[in-house]
Amino acid sequence: MTYCLAMLLNEGIVCLSDTRTNAGLDNISKFRKSFTWEIPGDRAICLMTAGNLAITQAVIGLLQENIDEPQDGIDTLLSAQSMFRVAEIVGDAMRTIQQRHGAALAQMGESSIASIIVAGQRKGGRQRLFHVYAAGNFVEATEDSPYFQIGEHKYGKPIIDRVITRETPLKTAVTAALLSMDSTLRSNLSVGMPLDLTVLRSDELCMSDHRRIEADDPQFDALSKGWSQALRDAFEEMDAMWN
Amino acid sequence: MTYCLAMLLNEGIVCLSDTRTNAGLDNISKFRKSFTWEIPGDRAICLMTAGNLAITQAVIGLLQENIDEPQDGIDTLLSAQSMFRVAEIVGDAMRTIQQRHGAALAQMGESSIASIIVAGQRKGGRQRLFHVYAAGNFVEATEDSPYFQIGEHKYGKPIIDRVITRETPLKTAVTAALLSMDSTLRSNLSVGMPLDLTVLRSDELCMSDHRRIEADDPQFDALSKGWSQALRDAFEEMDAMWN
Repeated sequence: MTYCLAMLLNEGIVCLSDTRTNAGLDNISKFRKSFTWEIPGDRAICLMTAGNLAITQAVIGLLQENIDEPQDGIDTLLSAQSMFRVAEIVGDAMRTIQQRHGAALAQMGESSIASIIVAGQRKGGRQRLFHVYAAGNFVEATEDSPYFQIGEHKYGKPIIDRVITRETPLKTAVTAALLSMDSTLRSNLSVGMPLDLTVLRSDELCMSDHRRIEADDPQFDALSKGWSQALRDAFEEMDAMWN
Repeated sequence: MTYCLAMLLNEGIVCLSDTRTNAGLDNISKFRKSFTWEIPGDRAICLMTAGNLAITQAVIGLLQENIDEPQDGIDTLLSAQSMFRVAEIVGDAMRTIQQRHGAALAQMGESSIASIIVAGQRKGGRQRLFHVYAAGNFVEATEDSPYFQIGEHKYGKPIIDRVITRETPLKTAVTAALLSMDSTLRSNLSVGMPLDLTVLRSDELCMSDHRRIEADDPQFDALSKGWSQALRDAFEEMDAMWN
């Protein structure tokens, strides 16, 4: 499985993904699920993927191939005029790949389900965040629902529900994303380190922060342990209140 | 959906269930999912159910009918010699009901999936906790895994994973169960108040505590609000640590 989380805030966008994939419990690998493109000053785009790995890799591969070998009349992530158009291009690529492999997978009893988070900003437009489904259709994050999760989303949802609004500072949202991931890592073996973090500050039109957090990252380790202790302290407070 | 949680601790057993059922999002009702039987001094049993409501109601109905109109050679929840035998009886009832309705449900494209938590103690034996599956088979909680969840289990798992061991005091486990339920209530509409709480203190062989917590319960409301505040405080501490 996978856990990817993207938040659209007034100050910018935070994207966080894990890197574990598994075909059954005894076949676990590490694959990047976070992909970025930028033309500094013009656009910054981050895609995160969940679901059938062959499908999502093929979608990313097709999107990259269209960039590498541009054809007349074919829009790419780097030529699209708007983020809405970028989401359409990703949806179209998803549909193409599903048409190519969907029927054969269904015949084998395998799922071709996949989803892609599309986040970013194009010069002249505002930052936008989309969730592209396996059918190529998509929804957009709004004021009321400023975040999307794909993959193993349930463990890490409570903390996000409690702290995130559009007004949350970008730095604080990064902390919330990391703690949401930490809860998921602890409760579900199919989500694993390292993590890929991407921050797009509003109107910067570049990767404001883009890094891998490794399993032995001392700062993340301290955060994880600190959160465990803080939760236990908060719990003891509640225990005293209830009993 | 449903969320039920049962914990087997050295001091006793805690069972907590919600009461919301839904057939689609526009057809929401309130049904008890927690059922108890006791012969004080002889046995105390709590069953909690999740899954297809018609199936689980039929299983509970069949178990009760066998108690109300006992037949020679047919063990019931009140005559079984051990909790292991109680789990077998529940599993047999599940299998009977699945055989009666499973094929017709499958033909309609409906799921007959259901599961039942069986908790309790019979005089002369220790407290035991089982998870009965739709096929009538079951697993038992152990020292390493002292709790079972059925239904919407993911939201409320992180807090349990962090605080519960066999040594956790019974009172503290009640607090943990309520907070696990609170996280689930907040993040998933298909789980709803009121709650049914059952506590079986080890060797008391009766319902040590058995009550309904209503939606307007002032103590639960205070716990829920206190937990929100404590989590936000803990989060702010982490935010200061990370940034």
